[in-house]
Formats: sequence, C-alpha cells, structure tokens
Amino acid sequence: MKDYFKHHPWHIIEEGFNPHYNKIAESVFSIGNGRMGQRANFEEAYSGESLQGSYVAGVYYPDKTRVGWWKNGYPEYFAKVLNAPSWISVHVKINDQQLDLASTKVENFKRILDMQTGMLSRSFTAIFSDGKKVQVDARRFCSLDNGEVGAIRYAITPLNFSSSCTLSLFVDADVKNTDSNYDEKFWDEVVKQAEESECVVVAQTRKTFFHVATGMRYKIVSGGQEVPRHIETELREKFAGNRVHIELQEGKEVVIYKYAAVLSSENHAKDDLLEDCRKVLSYAVSSGFENLLEKHAKVWEHKWNESDITIDGDVAAQQGIRFNIFQLSQTYTGEDERLNIGPKGFTGEKYGGSTYWDTEAYCLPFYLGTSEQHVARNLLVYRYKHLQKAIENAGKLGFRDGAALYPMVTMNGEECHNEWEITFEEIHRNGAIAYAIYDYIRYTGDEDFLIEYGLEVLIGISRFWAQRVNWSAERQKFVMLGVTGPNEYENNVNNNWYTNYIACWTLKYTQDAMQYVKAKNTVAFSGLLKRLSFVEKEVSYWMEIVEGMYFPEDKSRGVFLQQDGFLDKELLTVADLGKENRPINQKWSWDRILRSCFIKQADVLQGLYFFEDHFDQDIIKRNFDFYEPMTVHESSLSPCVHSIQAALLGYKDKAYEMYLRTARLDIDDYNNDTEDGCHITSMAGTWLSVIKGFGGMRVKEGQLHFNPFIPDQWESYSFRIEFRGRVLKIQVTTKEVKATLLSGDALTINFKGKPYLLRDSGSISEVL
Amino acid sequence: MKDYFKHHPWHIIEEGFNPHYNKIAESVFSIGNGRMGQRANFEEAYSGESLQGSYVAGVYYPDKTRVGWWKNGYPEYFAKVLNAPSWISVHVKINDQQLDLASTKVENFKRILDMQTGMLSRSFTAIFSDGKKVQVDARRFCSLDNGEVGAIRYAITPLNFSSSCTLSLFVDADVKNTDSNYDEKFWDEVVKQAEESECVVVAQTRKTFFHVATGMRYKIVSGGQEVPRHIETELREKFAGNRVHIELQEGKEVVIYKYAAVLSSENHAKDDLLEDCRKVLSYAVSSGFENLLEKHAKVWEHKWNESDITIDGDVAAQQGIRFNIFQLSQTYTGEDERLNIGPKGFTGEKYGGSTYWDTEAYCLPFYLGTSEQHVARNLLVYRYKHLQKAIENAGKLGFRDGAALYPMVTMNGEECHNEWEITFEEIHRNGAIAYAIYDYIRYTGDEDFLIEYGLEVLIGISRFWAQRVNWSAERQKFVMLGVTGPNEYENNVNNNWYTNYIACWTLKYTQDAMQYVKAKNTVAFSGLLKRLSFVEKEVSYWMEIVEGMYFPEDKSRGVFLQQDGFLDKELLTVADLGKENRPINQKWSWDRILRSCFIKQADVLQGLYFFEDHFDQDIIKRNFDFYEPMTVHESSLSPCVHSIQAALLGYKDKAYEMYLRTARLDIDDYNNDTEDGCHITSMAGTWLSVIKGFGGMRVKEGQLHFNPFIPDQWESYSFRIEFRGRVLKIQVTTKEVKATLLSGDALTINFKGKPYLLRDSGSISEVL
Repeated sequence: MKDYFKHHPWHIIEEGFNPHYNKIAESVFSIGNGRMGQRANFEEAYSGESLQGSYVAGVYYPDKTRVGWWKNGYPEYFAKVLNAPSWISVHVKINDQQLDLASTKVENFKRILDMQTGMLSRSFTAIFSDGKKVQVDARRFCSLDNGEVGAIRYAITPLNFSSSCTLSLFVDADVKNTDSNYDEKFWDEVVKQAEESECVVVAQTRKTFFHVATGMRYKIVSGGQEVPRHIETELREKFAGNRVHIELQEGKEVVIYKYAAVLSSENHAKDDLLEDCRKVLSYAVSSGFENLLEKHAKVWEHKWNESDITIDGDVAAQQGIRFNIFQLSQTYTGEDERLNIGPKGFTGEKYGGSTYWDTEAYCLPFYLGTSEQHVARNLLVYRYKHLQKAIENAGKLGFRDGAALYPMVTMNGEECHNEWEITFEEIHRNGAIAYAIYDYIRYTGDEDFLIEYGLEVLIGISRFWAQRVNWSAERQKFVMLGVTGPNEYENNVNNNWYTNYIACWTLKYTQDAMQYVKAKNTVAFSGLLKRLSFVEKEVSYWMEIVEGMYFPEDKSRGVFLQQDGFLDKELLTVADLGKENRPINQKWSWDRILRSCFIKQADVLQGLYFFEDHFDQDIIKRNFDFYEPMTVHESSLSPCVHSIQAALLGYKDKAYEMYLRTARLDIDDYNNDTEDGCHITSMAGTWLSVIKGFGGMRVKEGQLHFNPFIPDQWESYSFRIEFRGRVLKIQVTTKEVKATLLSGDALTINFKGKPYLLRDSGSISEVL
Repeated sequence: MKDYFKHHPWHIIEEGFNPHYNKIAESVFSIGNGRMGQRANFEEAYSGESLQGSYVAGVYYPDKTRVGWWKNGYPEYFAKVLNAPSWISVHVKINDQQLDLASTKVENFKRILDMQTGMLSRSFTAIFSDGKKVQVDARRFCSLDNGEVGAIRYAITPLNFSSSCTLSLFVDADVKNTDSNYDEKFWDEVVKQAEESECVVVAQTRKTFFHVATGMRYKIVSGGQEVPRHIETELREKFAGNRVHIELQEGKEVVIYKYAAVLSSENHAKDDLLEDCRKVLSYAVSSGFENLLEKHAKVWEHKWNESDITIDGDVAAQQGIRFNIFQLSQTYTGEDERLNIGPKGFTGEKYGGSTYWDTEAYCLPFYLGTSEQHVARNLLVYRYKHLQKAIENAGKLGFRDGAALYPMVTMNGEECHNEWEITFEEIHRNGAIAYAIYDYIRYTGDEDFLIEYGLEVLIGISRFWAQRVNWSAERQKFVMLGVTGPNEYENNVNNNWYTNYIACWTLKYTQDAMQYVKAKNTVAFSGLLKRLSFVEKEVSYWMEIVEGMYFPEDKSRGVFLQQDGFLDKELLTVADLGKENRPINQKWSWDRILRSCFIKQADVLQGLYFFEDHFDQDIIKRNFDFYEPMTVHESSLSPCVHSIQAALLGYKDKAYEMYLRTARLDIDDYNNDTEDGCHITSMAGTWLSVIKGFGGMRVKEGQLHFNPFIPDQWESYSFRIEFRGRVLKIQVTTKEVKATLLSGDALTINFKGKPYLLRDSGSISEVL
C-alpha cells in the first residue's frame, strides 16, 4: 500500500515528479467519456517508463490464442482492448532541445484530477541543461457532452529566455499493445491527410476491420492573438502532423489549444469517416476549449447530482468513494447498448475483453442506483444480443437444443478465455446473467422487459442448466459435476453449492417468468415458444431438477458446503497464515492453493448475498462465521460482499475493514498493480458496500428499505439514489438517518422496516 | 488404420512411392543406436512434405515455456529433443537437373527396413522430364557397434545416358525444430572445416551449450576403382561440404560411401571434438561400409538372441512385435546412465523431454527381460542422479525437508511440463519410481541396490507422500486431495484410489528397505540417515498414514472407486458411445470428458496390475468388469495393462483385442499420428502383453512363473527372457509350453505353479 497521492475530497493530487510512480499515476489520472478514454500519458515527448494508452470503446483486436496445451473448445482468439491511435501529443522542441521530463530537471510538478468537472491538469517547470527554464500548464478532458471530442490546453511560458520553438502536433496510428500475444501491431493505415492545422489518420484494425478516424486541429495564441508561425506538414505511414515553428518571448505565455476528434466505424459509415471527423473537428475548434469544457462540466454536475456519496470526518474515504464513482461514470454511460464495462475500463489493456460476470453481479446495481433506467437496461440488452453466440458457445461444448452458455470474457458474445477450468467450468456466470434480469426488474418494476428480451435469455440459460446436471443413481439426486465456483481457488469441483443453487433458482425463476409473459402477452409468448421449439415437458423436467437437486451441507455446523469434500480439507483460518505466505496466489503453487481451504472471494456467501431473503439471519451468520475467516480476498471483487454481509450481521468493524480494502485499492495501489490500470468493475462493489452495506438499502416488493449504520470513524455520510424516476438523498449521522426526495413523485420508503411517505421534495428523518 | 506396409516377419516394406505417406514412412523407417538416430529422410534433395530429423541422445534445448496463463511453480522452459545437424545428404545433380523425387517420375520405389540387421535400404528409378533414367540403391545404418558412426552406401546407375554429374556431400547445422515455441533456431556455429573429402561442423546449442561435431568423409567408386572427380569445397554458416563433379557412364554403377561421425560434448571434451571427430571418421573410412555393417549386424544378432519373440500363423502380429522390440532396442541400449527413453525415441520431436513415468511403469520390465541387468539398473541410477532436482522440484511446490517430487517430463531432472493439473497434480509418477526400484530388485535379486541408491530415493519420495496427505477431521482418515491419476481424463480429484494406494505402499516399502539396509550395512545406513537429517518419528508417522489412509470403494459392487464421487457420474460404457464421439479427446470439450465416466487409461486397474498379489482374483475380476467397459484406451499406454489383466482373468478374446491395439499401432498408423514419430514407450507395453499377458510370466520369491495361453489366432509363439544371468526360451503351441535354458546356470521355473528344474541348456515342457 502506498500513500502517494494527496487526500482531498474532490481532487486526486500528485505533487512532485516521481518517474518511478509514473505508470501508477497514468492509470489513476485516466480520463474518459464512455466512448473514448486516455491514460495520463504526457503531451510532450517522454522517454521514461510509460504505458501508452488511448482507447476507443467497442474497438478490439482478436489476438490469436496463445496457449501451452490446446483443448477442444478453446476459442481461436482472445479479444484485446486496443491501444488506439494517439491524439494527445504536443511535442515541444526549444532550440533543438526536446522537452522530455526524463531528461530535464523538473520543479513544481503538480498533477490534479478534478473529479467534479472531469478535468486533468498538470503543471511543472522544466529546466534544460543549459539553464533555460520553461513553465508548462496543461489541461485536458474527454468531453462527456460530445463523446468524440478531446480537448487540450497546453500553455508554455519561457521563464528566462527567448528563443525559437518547434511544436510537433500530430495524430499517430503507429502504436502497439504491450500485451500483444505475438508482438504484432494491430493497426493498418486506411487513409491519412495532413493540411496546415488539420490532420487526420484513418486506420483499421487487422482482422476485425474496425475503422477509426483520429484527427486534430489546433490554435496557438498568446496575449489573445494568434501567434505567427511557419508550418511544415508531416506525413508518414499511419502518421499525420504539423511541425510548427514559433518564437517564444521571455515571460510570455503561449497557449496551444489542440482539439481532437476520435470517430469509429461503430458509429459512422466507413466511407464517411474522414469527412465526419473533419466536421467534428470544425465543431470543436469553433466551440473553443472553454465552451467545450463548460458543457462537459455540466454533464458531470448532472452525474454527481445522481450519484454522489459524501463522507464527513474521513477525507481519505471521501476521496476514495468519489474516485470509484468517477471512474465508473466515465467508463460506461449506458447510451450505447453494444458497449459494456471492461475490467480496466479506459485505464489499461490488461484482461482484454470488455465483459465479465462482474457486469451483472457488481456493476448493474451501481448503474441501477445512479443512472436512469435505460443505462442498466442496455447492459441487459447487450446480453440479449449475444444470446445466439451464447448458444453457439454452448454448442462448442456439446450442449444442444438452444442451451446457452454466456462467455467468461467477451467482446462480441464469443468466448475469449482459454483456461479449461474457467472457460468450460466457471459456468455460474450464466446464473449471474439470469439474476441480473431479476435484479433489474426488482429494482425498476419493468416486468415487461421479460416479454421483449428477458424470457428468451432465461430459457436459453435454463436449458443449459437442465443439460449440465445429471442424475446420480448413487445419491438419488441431481448433481452438477466439474465446475469452478466464484472462488477460483477451487477448480473442477462437484456440487458447488452456489452454482447448484443459482441453477435451481434460474429454473424456477424462468418458470415464473414464463407464467408472467403468458398471462401478459399470449401472442408474444406462443410466438417465442414456437421460435424456440420449446416443449412443455422441458419445464416439468426443470421442476424435477429443482425438487431433486443435491446441496452439500454440514448439518452439524449448520452451514452449506462450498462443494463436495470441503470438510476433507485442513480447516485453517487466514490468521494461521504467516505473512510470508500472503498473497497466496503469489506465494503458493496452484495445487497447494487448490487443496487448501482458503477462499479467493465470496462463494457460498455470494449465494447468501444474492438470495439473502431466502435464508434467515442465523443461517447467514453461521456461514459468514465459517467462511469469512478462510477468505483471503485476493480478488478485488471479494471484500464488498463481505462488507455488505458484515453490515447486515452487525459486524461493524469487519464491514468497515472490508470497505477500506476496496475504496482506495487503486489510489493507494494496494495490490501493486495499479500501473496496469484501475480495477474498474470492483469499484461498483465499493459503491455497493456503502449503499447496501452501511446504508442497508434493499428493494422489497417495489419499495426501498434502509437499515443504516455509521462506521465509528465517520461523522456522517450521504448518498444519492435513482429509483423509479426519483432522486433521493439519504443522509446518515451518528444520531439519525434522513431521506430527502430531490426530484420525482411521492414514494414510500422504509427505515428499519417502518414505512414513511416521502413527497414534494420533502424529508423525513428517524433516529438511528 | 492404414494397411500400407507389406507384411513380412523380419522386414518393414514399402512398395511404390506415395508422397502422402512419406512422413509416416519417415517415422516407421527410423534407425538409431541409442546414441544417435535418424528419421528416414531421403539422402538426395527432396522438396516434398518431410519432417527432417537427426537426433543426438542427451542433447536438448530448453525452449522458453509457452503458456496462456502463468501459474506459480511452472518451469521456465520445456526441454526439446533437438533436430540435430544433418549428416545424411547426398544431393545429386545430373546435367543441372536436381534429383528430387517430388519433381521426377518415380518407378520401382521400394524401401525396406531389415530389422534383423538394422539396415534401411531404398531403391528406385527416377525419370527426368528429358527422359533420362537413373537407378538409385541406397542403404544406411547407425552403427550399434560404434554409436558415433553412421554409414551410407548410395549407388547411382544411369540407365539410358552418360553425362556429367555433381554430387553435394555435406554436413549442415542450419536446421530447425518444427515445434520451436518461438520459431527460433537452436544451433549456433562453433567451428567448421571443409577439406577435400572431409568436412566437419561443430555447432553448439543455445542456452545449454552442448557441442556436437558432425563430420563426413566419403569414397566414390565404380567397378572397384575410385572415380575421377573434381572437388570444390563449400563453407557457409553452419555448413561444410564438397561439391564433387564426376562423369556418369550409361549402365555403369557409381557408389558413394558416405561415412558420418556424430560426437557430442556429453562424451568428449569440447576442445577435442573436432579432432576426435576426425579420428572417428578415419576409423569409419578405413573400416569400410561392409566391415562396419558386419559388426553392426553382429550386435543386432546378439540383441535378437536376448529378446526375440516369434509368432507363427500370424505374420502381421510377428512383424508388429518385432518392430516394437527393434525400436526399443535402438532407442536405449543402457550403456549410458545419463540417458533415458523419450516417448518418440529418435523418430520425432513431439512431447519433447526424454523421460516420463512410462520409463518406470512400462519400459523397465522390457529391459529387465531382454537385456543384461545393468541396462535396467542404469535407468534407476538415472533417477537417483536426479534426486536433488526432484527435491528442488518439490520445494517449488512448497514441500520441505527433503521431500522429492520427480518431474512429469524431464531431460535433466528439472520439470518441463506446464499444465497445473499434470505438472503439480499427476504425482502418482513418484510412486512408479519407487515401484520400479521394487520391481528391479524383485526381478534381479539385487537387493544391495538399496544401499547405494535405492533407499535414498525411497526416503525422498516417502517424505513427499507424508507431506502431501492431510488428516480429514471429518472422515477421521488421511486423505490425498487435488490429484490427477493415471487416467488423465479426470483432473484435480480427491482420493484417487491408485495414488493413495501406491503412496501407502511406498511408505511401507521404504520402511522395509530401511530395515534391510540397516541390517546389511549399518555404517551406510546411519551415514545416510545423518546426511538426510532423518528422524525416527518420520517412519512412525508414515505407519500412521498407512494405517489410517482412506480408500474410496463401492462396497455394494465390491469395487474400488477411482476417486471420491465417481459414482455420481452417469455410468455409461464405451458401447453407448456412437462412433461420432470417438475418440472423445478429439470430439469433446475437456469439461465434458472430465465429468463423463470414460477412462483414458488404466487407473484402478493400473494399481491392480502393479499389486496383483495383494488382491484375490475375484476382486481383480470385479474391478476389471466394472472399469474395462468404460475405458476408451486413448492413451497408447492403456491397452497393454488391460491385455495382461484380461489374460490373467481368462478373457482370451479381450486379451488378444487389446494386444492388437498396441502391436501395430505405428505400422498401421492407428491414431493418425505416426508422421510425428513412433510411440516408443508404449512399445514396451506390447512386449509386456505377450510376456506377462499371453505368457503369464511373473517373478515370485526369486523364481520365474509362467501361466501361458495361446490366442486362437496363433499356431505357436516363443519368446526369450533374460533372467538373473540366464537366457531362456519359452515356446508355446496350441498344445504345450516348453522352456529351454539357452545359457546360464540351472534354475527352477514354474508352470502353473508347478516347479521344474532347468539345467545344462535343457528343456522341459508341459501340456497347456
């Protein structure tokens, strides 16, 4: 854990230049707008350590699978998030000396990410070896108002000299992914153009043939006037730029406004890309930096109004939760149903793919609670659109008749992952997708979602479960063999309780959903059944499974067993592990991890979290008391579920401890891997541990329930919630909880099970 | 299955040129001498499909591990059998036309591998597009008399023309492995030299720095006279040769004798290699082809005297078994304790490494039965010499205090394999190494092997088992979690019966061995214990494990269970599988294979095979009847164990069926993969199924026992056996069995449990 960035309620602040931390800072200071994103790479040239990253949503490269030993059914490729053509560069040469912070002295270096307005700024004084001092103030943002626009304000002031200066302003598609499996470049040039002050490169991805136009225009002003300049255009392969010669005068600031446009063939006809890119550039340059920024900040203001969490008395916690909300909000805006939330968002390449079960299990509730309904809905529609691919995916594993297995990792619905124990066996992901439909409907009341999309997905998944279980003649029960549960520190186990449970729940929920759709829209229902060649006896077999499923449990302890044979393990606790063994995934070989009792992330507890209302609190407590001490939380997704459950059970300290593990995970680089990018999807878990954990929020029968407590370390906290067209603010102090209806119609909410009617922007409060 | 090669008791015969089968023929016609080996690549240039393969025993390249997802404990490299510098080429250019069977018409093509004398010959008529016809007769062998010598007799006769001819005779180290992980070449040049008629290249392997000198000399004669020639020397990177211009006269045969020497730094000082290579070349050229061949054939005669099996009435079976014995005999001669038996021997690159548990479980009994004692003994000393590496290997997986885990695949004692479910979990291999010590001593009576080598290995392995089990509080038994048994169609299972059994057996056998050594040589014993920091209570803990181990079984069926939970599977038989599902390892995804009941190779039955005398025949029968129908035999190592067990149980047809599956596996290309090389290690299993299966041979209390039967398809069969300094011949007809003592002292043998004294080259016989 590093305490590197300064604490501040709204800003992330870096003071002083530390090349060693540069890649971490590049991740933390990443900006994006749901359509494009950019790591905090420098505008000027930099020859030090850096992970260059520009990203365009939905654009990927199917990198040929690399594997030691092939297994039937492995996908041919792993879809890589692409490092896309670069648009940020403003290279500065003063008297033939390149401005490069790796080779100049650097003073007064300061970098600030203003999360309130979504702007990154950076300032420093660079001192060349000949004593020339230059002051630089750089600001930039990716517009949330127009997702194809990025804008940079880069100001140079020569502090102790006057001299000629050459600026290189360009766009460059000659870029690489560091995680390329076979060390190839993924972009080819389509067309490029360099005019004075406007340059565009259209490049296409190999194999997938996504076209991306990356363009730039610029203005260079000083004292309100355009600066006289001499321009040379530069055209190289995949590269278009201007070399601009200007004169710097001592003490006089020169400001370069660089406007970038990034357009992809996902949103434009390929033939129009060049022209459309020029239009966006025209729009940006005619709007101007300040005007674009104002509109951008306005969108952020709106987002914060929907989603802000305040924490008083604990600036680090305040900064941490806002950082999580900020990153989530700039990763996925919900405007485009083809997109999803990559584990690193727009902050790095690692893990490739864009979609994991993280989306359904962790991110969906965040977007449900902080955005308008269509945002979460689009996440579900995304999976609906991948249903045919999920059926093909199941087909590759030998399943038939419309059974659907959603991929573990995907870009376009096809499986990307290639470890058999994950790809083929971590099938509980299918259950999370069914659960997300249920969760969405529970939250929004939008039951008709079942008619158009939901039921078809549920049937595909249920068909999979029905084929995946088998009858054990020995037990006279249905069993599910050879799975990997959410706890990936077990592989190829039999009867993972969580997977068996969510499978049965899916079968039952699908039956209920069928009844709903049948009653609500008979025509649509019978049309769907016909299209799916669905026969009645499928449901009756599902119900046989539901009735006859085997669930491992330890009756003497009164706990569910993670899987068959769990009690054969040596049952130790994390406290028994010396520091030299932690984290076990770095210290132990895989077999040792597998045969140990140690748990990577919530597994039985994940089930008790999803299906909390199926179990009385005693059962949850016994299981929590049994499993929590064995859990090493080596997944970033783990602590939030434990935090929420600890809160439910009144384990205040444990809830706070688990909260802390997620909230500042990236800012403080807990896991020593922030340089690869931020853990975007687990950030939703952080939000959940405040809202569902401390706030105790639940939705039951269409009403919001709160059962809050406040950690001893805090004076008060508040959060905002979107719920069925309303925005509510919940404030919790050490003494009371207060709910205010910020907008929307009257509604009944419940504090500790007691209903209150809230209307007309009114508030109610209740002692804790 | 292909019926391509002609049946013959001593020869493998190919008639007609079939480029499509060329790589298969290259494998089948491979020759070797334990020190070097050579696929049946053509001497003349060939532009068609070919897998070039020259191999030098013990010389390998540590190719950087290629893996999709890294796990702690994976080895850094996979040791590759190296395609070594080539020595066979005799390129022939007639009037600027390259002789290349891919571009000429070919008539009368015939290739014969004479297994009796170990010589490969090939003849054909090539017809150039201009009508020139040339007759070629080529013969070659790798000398078993001098393992560093290869010799080629290549005769050219112009049938219908006279013309000038250019011969390119060279050695070439600019070669590649087709299975290179990163497409690199593994050889660098050290020194080379080309003189008239003598050329040498010394090359070294990258990283491992093995030096190999490959040299050639030649004579060109016609009608008993040296042919007038003009010579140009050729030196390129890694290449040294002569270009020899001669005149061909119509109808007159010109014979090129090319002598090759292949020397490695395993047997020579690096600085001496060039000079030593020249000495070997001098020896070869002065001996001459016929003389070298005679000595070579003499060694083969001796080998066949020790190991031949005859089968009357079934030429295909006769040819098959001799092919198996031939390949095994030319792969490993037992003269060098640093060497071992690679799964492809000298016939291909596939599987890399040289040593698998195949050696101990399958090959050792072959060499015990067909060679002098030191041959098998050297295989055990090989593992003794790797003991420290095995302790390091266990250390990487977290085992301490001298616990040893032998690698799954190795060249030098270090693990090469990188699939966690195999590398870390298929630990039964450790038991096979302990069992091999027992098996060797049982066969040879050489109990003192324990003092110098055996006990130390046994203690290392027993220490591993003692740390690998854990106490299950639930069962109140010791358990072994997370293993892969011999049936690799199950991964990460708990309490694999076979592994638990061989672990306990090892612990007990080690205790016995300690008592033997203590009694026999107290000084050596206490010295060893001190060196190993061995404490008394280790043995008592071992005995606790032996007493308290859990073994899964099905009491109602009276069978041992392959692992926990086996009965939860859908219990089908191979007969239930449609053809479209076979082989399942090509048709099914891995998860489907894993959760099915289908068995790749003997697992419980492997244990009942090894420890046959621990169980009464009823138990063996019940288990065989239960498991055999589920076994798909998709390992080449599988059918032999089933064949032996079927023979024991009197299932004659099953025994013969299983025998057939192995005997002609490569000749008939059953598995469609002979082009990669031959399945060398499983050939020992073929031998076993005759000797232990049909012959019913066992060693009990120092005496040979036979309990033979004859398959209905045969008229008679015989085999020769080395046993404690004697050579015996056993002949079985449909009516009787007869034993003849070919050499050595008198001994008692048993037919169906009845003892007979055999002496003075005498015979005894007994009705069947």
